[in-house]
Amino acid sequence: MKICHFLYNKKSYWGAFRNNLVFPFPDSGLEKENLNDLNLTHNVEARLVKFLLPVSPSKIVCVGRNYAEHAAELGNEIPKIPLLFLKAPSALITEGETIVIPKQSNQIEHEGELGIVISKECRNLTETDNPFDFVLGYTCLNDVTARDLQKLDVQFTRAKSFDTFCPVGAFIETEVDVSDLQIRTRVNGIIKQDGRTSQMVFPVEYLIRYISNQMTLFPGDLIATGTPPGVSKLNVGDLCEVEIEGIGCLKNPISN
Amino acid sequence: MKICHFLYNKKSYWGAFRNNLVFPFPDSGLEKENLNDLNLTHNVEARLVKFLLPVSPSKIVCVGRNYAEHAAELGNEIPKIPLLFLKAPSALITEGETIVIPKQSNQIEHEGELGIVISKECRNLTETDNPFDFVLGYTCLNDVTARDLQKLDVQFTRAKSFDTFCPVGAFIETEVDVSDLQIRTRVNGIIKQDGRTSQMVFPVEYLIRYISNQMTLFPGDLIATGTPPGVSKLNVGDLCEVEIEGIGCLKNPISN
Repeated sequence: MKICHFLYNKKSYWGAFRNNLVFPFPDSGLEKENLNDLNLTHNVEARLVKFLLPVSPSKIVCVGRNYAEHAAELGNEIPKIPLLFLKAPSALITEGETIVIPKQSNQIEHEGELGIVISKECRNLTETDNPFDFVLGYTCLNDVTARDLQKLDVQFTRAKSFDTFCPVGAFIETEVDVSDLQIRTRVNGIIKQDGRTSQMVFPVEYLIRYISNQMTLFPGDLIATGTPPGVSKLNVGDLCEVEIEGIGCLKNPISN
Repeated sequence: MKICHFLYNKKSYWGAFRNNLVFPFPDSGLEKENLNDLNLTHNVEARLVKFLLPVSPSKIVCVGRNYAEHAAELGNEIPKIPLLFLKAPSALITEGETIVIPKQSNQIEHEGELGIVISKECRNLTETDNPFDFVLGYTCLNDVTARDLQKLDVQFTRAKSFDTFCPVGAFIETEVDVSDLQIRTRVNGIIKQDGRTSQMVFPVEYLIRYISNQMTLFPGDLIATGTPPGVSKLNVGDLCEVEIEGIGCLKNPISN
């Protein structure tokens, strides 16, 4: 199922998305007549529904250098343990919203990533716990980075936390096996990053277990799992797309 | 005024703290008879009131190496621009709660700091904006750090984001001039850190303006303004106190 959060008649609701239609959850607060109305007639193309952020994380935990070839392209070694950093939640935007180049940077780059959405409090998982029991679903995520400031600051925080620097997809896909999915990032239709989630240095289940031993994860928290090789500069007027097999495609225009 | 958030008869309320008494705000939800009862008889020493976290930040923005002598004691240069990093909000605890040494670290240290609590959305402040217009108040904060992991990881995130690694005071002081306050950290009563806020490399107003140009600050967001020299190891059984003139004293025991 693809969970979504949307605006309809000036109110926000949660629902499922299927065949380009939105199906509000029975307990979403939409009255029955409105619900039928929405199911049957209000498809997304008609723009009667506006998608809102499907996550409201208390934190966004990111994993750096989690694809060997990406670590190499920036001249870094593969980490021996997951390299963690945080992005500010104020950087979140969703499908169709604009990535804004800040005046401080001359080199902002895309980093298409698989995003994990946590479903329940998750702390100190052991080898006998199943990390997938703590996952609500997955979404496309773009870990936009001001590469020049990242090098200047050493700490990644500022370079990765400007407003609009964390686009995430409009849907959370709850039923997908993420062990070997194609993950591609295109700029103006040209493929820049092309990898598979099976190439992660530390796979999804390892990351969840590891992070849960460093800090408690709460429902809605996001994990960004690292990016395949091929990062490149984004310019004003570009359209950046992060597409993950079986999950969806996240499109964002670039502006200043 | 010292704003506080407290538990009374299993419910939480907001109020003011004065002379060791709690005065619930008129719109706090406490009925009038309870309110009088609380004002007159239920002082804090009697433990009928339990203090809760007075902040619920969407992010905790920290400033590294903001006192020249502290930068020097760890062998670092003074930054040319504020060095920003984030602590996970899951690390928050308040007055009296226990700082827990994680099994991953052999060297956790205190960093007593002035904490700023933001009052309203704050973005791209210019020289003509008054940063203090965006401040709700100030609190004591301990930026607890696993020094060994900080050196190992390079990125500060993990070393500073373990659960319980961000104690903040039980009160937000709304009426204090923070330009030159004594800030001291004691361990088991012995003064370890002793500085003045006037020694900050980048003062409070500069930090708020600067950070607001990197990312939008929201009401309740916390800024940790850096620590004076004298950081030292915390051990099981220690009591760590961060005291700031005119604001208060934050006490936390250490455990494993």
